Formats: sequence, C-alpha cells, structure tokens
Amino acid sequence: MFFHQHVDIPEKEIVPGFYAKFIHTDQMTLALVRIEKGSRLPEHHHVHEQITNILEGELEMNINGEIKSCKPGTSVEIPSNTPHSAVAKTDCLVMDVFSPVREDYKAL
Amino acid sequence: MFFHQHVDIPEKEIVPGFYAKFIHTDQMTLALVRIEKGSRLPEHHHVHEQITNILEGELEMNINGEIKSCKPGTSVEIPSNTPHSAVAKTDCLVMDVFSPVREDYKAL
Repeated sequence: MFFHQHVDIPEKEIVPGFYAKFIHTDQMTLALVRIEKGSRLPEHHHVHEQITNILEGELEMNINGEIKSCKPGTSVEIPSNTPHSAVAKTDCLVMDVFSPVREDYKAL
Repeated sequence: MFFHQHVDIPEKEIVPGFYAKFIHTDQMTLALVRIEKGSRLPEHHHVHEQITNILEGELEMNINGEIKSCKPGTSVEIPSNTPHSAVAKTDCLVMDVFSPVREDYKAL
C-alpha cells in the first residue's frame, strides 16, 4: 500500500495527552502526533534518531538541556540516545520521523 | 545543532520548479520541498526509502504505475528501488523523508 490517508489510521495514546498515528516502513517510523495543551512528555531517550516537525501550535522542547519553544517552521533533530522532553504550550500537531523503526510503537 | 529554523536553510533547485531545504542526520534526510504549479518530477528510483507528506496543495503521484492525486492528510510510502514520478496540480509544499541519507543531495 503506497498511499496512506491519515483519516484512516487509528490513533494510539502514547502518553497522556499525546495521540499518535503511525506509518512504519522497513527503516523508518513516521508518527503524526496530536497533543493536548498542557500535556508533558517526560524525559527519555532511545537509540532511534528522531526529527520532530511542528505543524501546528507551540511545543516547548528540551533536548539534552537546551530548551526552545517551537512553532511551525521549526524542525528538531534528536540524535541517537539524546535525552529529550516536551511540554505543549497550546494544542499541537507534530510530525515525528524515526530511524530505525520504532518496534515498540508497533506493539501499541 | 538540535533546532533548525526552515527560514535559515538555503533552498536548492533539485529539478525545474522543485525547491528543497534539507536536514541531514546520520540515518535520514528530511527535505521540505516547495513545488511550482505544473512542474514535473520525471520517473526515477533510488535505493533510499521515502515517505512524502503533502502539507499544502495537490500533487499527482505515480508510484510504480499506481496514480493518485494527493492533498494534505495523505502520506505516500515509496519503498526502496520503486519507480515514482509526480506532477504538481497546484503550488505545493511537501515534506519528504528518506533513509538512508541522500548523500547525492548533500552535494547540491
């Protein structure tokens, strides 16, 4: 299946207030994440590289102690095993991409 | 550098009418591509996996002979070595992700 309609992909709650739709390929996972204002992603890290792209709203991100408030027009590069956390200042929509595949998210 | 502002990234013309801003990580390339109405990406293929996400406009895509007109809310999965081409029905903005890194685009 080449063409994915976001409306057809079920949403999974990954942490409270973070609702993700996933597309997994052989080497990448794409996550379209809807975030409710005030929700927090606790600090964590993973071997997967990540790029977070803000599509709507304002997301404060802390990458290894460097903190920035991110809006549309910002992409955030998170190298392998780098601690990161986030707080949604407004309702947000973000597009995350990971490599390698997030096998842990396949199980949700 | 964790935080990338799109406004700060120089645009490169990859084929006529296709203008891309790149972020390269160790395993992925992200390309934010502005496309002028009527522009065509000729059929090609590459070893890199690709996911194309339509952010604005309408892009007709042909993936291995399967043709669809794609708008925001669509993500297109292009497996390794799969022939694909595109025609911009309107001005478009798309976000492409590739793995592994597009070393050829680093040289542009």
